[in-house]
Amino acid sequence: MYAVAFSPDDTSLRVVEKEWPTPADGEALVRTLAVGVDGSDRRIAAGEIGGDPPAGSDHLVLGHEAVGVVEESAGTLEAGSVVVPMVRRPASDSRFARNGELDMATPGTFHECGITGAHGFMSEAFVADPAYLIPVAESVADYGFLAEPASVVEKAIDQAFATRSRFDWRPETAFVLGNGNLGLLALARLTTGEEFDRTYCLGRRDRPDQTIQFIENVGGTYVDSREVPLVDFAETYEPADFIFETTGYSKHSVEAVRALGSNGVATLQGIPAADTTLEVDCGTFHTDLVTTNKALLGVVNARKSHFQSAIEWLADAPTDRLEELVTGIYDPDEVEQAFDDSPEKMKTVVKFDQ
Amino acid sequence: MYAVAFSPDDTSLRVVEKEWPTPADGEALVRTLAVGVDGSDRRIAAGEIGGDPPAGSDHLVLGHEAVGVVEESAGTLEAGSVVVPMVRRPASDSRFARNGELDMATPGTFHECGITGAHGFMSEAFVADPAYLIPVAESVADYGFLAEPASVVEKAIDQAFATRSRFDWRPETAFVLGNGNLGLLALARLTTGEEFDRTYCLGRRDRPDQTIQFIENVGGTYVDSREVPLVDFAETYEPADFIFETTGYSKHSVEAVRALGSNGVATLQGIPAADTTLEVDCGTFHTDLVTTNKALLGVVNARKSHFQSAIEWLADAPTDRLEELVTGIYDPDEVEQAFDDSPEKMKTVVKFDQ
Repeated sequence: MYAVAFSPDDTSLRVVEKEWPTPADGEALVRTLAVGVDGSDRRIAAGEIGGDPPAGSDHLVLGHEAVGVVEESAGTLEAGSVVVPMVRRPASDSRFARNGELDMATPGTFHECGITGAHGFMSEAFVADPAYLIPVAESVADYGFLAEPASVVEKAIDQAFATRSRFDWRPETAFVLGNGNLGLLALARLTTGEEFDRTYCLGRRDRPDQTIQFIENVGGTYVDSREVPLVDFAETYEPADFIFETTGYSKHSVEAVRALGSNGVATLQGIPAADTTLEVDCGTFHTDLVTTNKALLGVVNARKSHFQSAIEWLADAPTDRLEELVTGIYDPDEVEQAFDDSPEKMKTVVKFDQ
Repeated sequence: MYAVAFSPDDTSLRVVEKEWPTPADGEALVRTLAVGVDGSDRRIAAGEIGGDPPAGSDHLVLGHEAVGVVEESAGTLEAGSVVVPMVRRPASDSRFARNGELDMATPGTFHECGITGAHGFMSEAFVADPAYLIPVAESVADYGFLAEPASVVEKAIDQAFATRSRFDWRPETAFVLGNGNLGLLALARLTTGEEFDRTYCLGRRDRPDQTIQFIENVGGTYVDSREVPLVDFAETYEPADFIFETTGYSKHSVEAVRALGSNGVATLQGIPAADTTLEVDCGTFHTDLVTTNKALLGVVNARKSHFQSAIEWLADAPTDRLEELVTGIYDPDEVEQAFDDSPEKMKTVVKFDQ
């Protein structure tokens, strides 16, 4: 079968031919329908993060945002079911693995399929323990590859509300930092959910631009960071109750707190290069957090309940918006185009023939 | 009656003579037993923070950590009851005031007795709406002035656990930043509670030193920040699951995250000068928060439930430890000694004759 693989030896991305996978006892065989490409995939392909092949392999099959159809059943999963795979797999025994909370597991105790230590799903088929496969309605099959990134948004919302659960929090305003594909998906989720009344999205693009168009089509307000830097957002627009960061720009980790209102919470999802020393106003950051009870959370990965919330959202989400978000659907041999990050692309997808 | 007051006009702290207070309809009259002095009081006295007198007054009566006895009853509060006053009072109507969640209220919608906008309790008597007076057992009367700072510790623990409530968090290690009076009180609370197995406390003092002695007497480990900077703590000792910051040193707001383990949570309580620009490693801060699901919370003030938890703790706390923490009990006319912050002092208290 064909698979899109990264070779750390020469930092290359190529289509490789692999043996058709054979499910082990209790595993299901899944035929891949489509696999989304995100910023992490591009950074792996560039040799910046992750990319470690599984033991004994010289390459890593990429792809962690997948949807497929069960071909060989296992457990209660029947052949023909549409499924979305979760990303993490245990590398060693841990209570997080046993509890179904691998998203909170300690680094070193898990692999991430398609990211590091375990093959991903950008291949004609893959095998998986059914515990890591989440059935979705057939109506969701076309956009099932969005379940994984949407699950991270659900986890962030879940964690944010947990953080504010000890008092009568009544958020109104959500602010997404970044207009990449995760930012735009988060914005689509936040504008269609019940949690927030008004949404904003930070970018640095000139009009006309399709991400700005998308932001406005879903009902959000575009904030140009060149005109209104993050630290001026609250004063220029309004203080945010919830911030969802996707820029991976490390200054934002500190400055986001300035854009929050009292009791606001910011979740960080971007992963910048570590060891980036910057001059920042720690005094205001510290004082602001304390005197107005603000919160800052790091959020990575997601567990089954978050995937399920994401799938529920996808089932109800306006299809025209999802269609607008997906700017390119490519065959595996067009993978370079799927990985290309030029401004006219929003979400790209690699599709497999059935 | 006598009161200890701050005059913003000449940044002076002095004992003033005031009229005996007359309770308004529905208010109780409380005779003060004792009032603790903390870092905020010292900063107000130095003209650094707060200090705004109530409308129509040229001075602010200080003191927000008080215990007293009801002299004129109100509501269900009987004369003779020992009470601890809460700190915040509504300055305008808000749902936080109506809900009993003034600790989460937006700045500008409340006064803080003895801190800004409303007189404190460092006077022979004060009046209060019984909604802001919390009855305590007589056995707690001697250390009732510790209920207010201990309520902030309870709020921090409450918020930290809420933040981690969506998964099976099993914290073991707590780390207090700062060996001032709030830090030492927090350490005493954290070592006697059920939540954590091991505790550490950061300071920068040479032995012999009574704060180090106190840390070790309660069963904590002293960490000298000159030998082991905060960013090296996790590696030298062990990653912390919970950090309670009291230093007000703004670099700690960022560096605390380095000292946390996976899924750890740090609460900030110190208030540094805003506009302190420092060079910090934002990249590691951001990456660390995200990839290991860490959380950073600002915590200020406390509500009734936190005072009640604090009072329960005080009722069971080992009296010899509380006695050791309180290094000086002064009359109102010795207030300068109570406000003096020399190293041989831990918690100081102003006591009123009955």
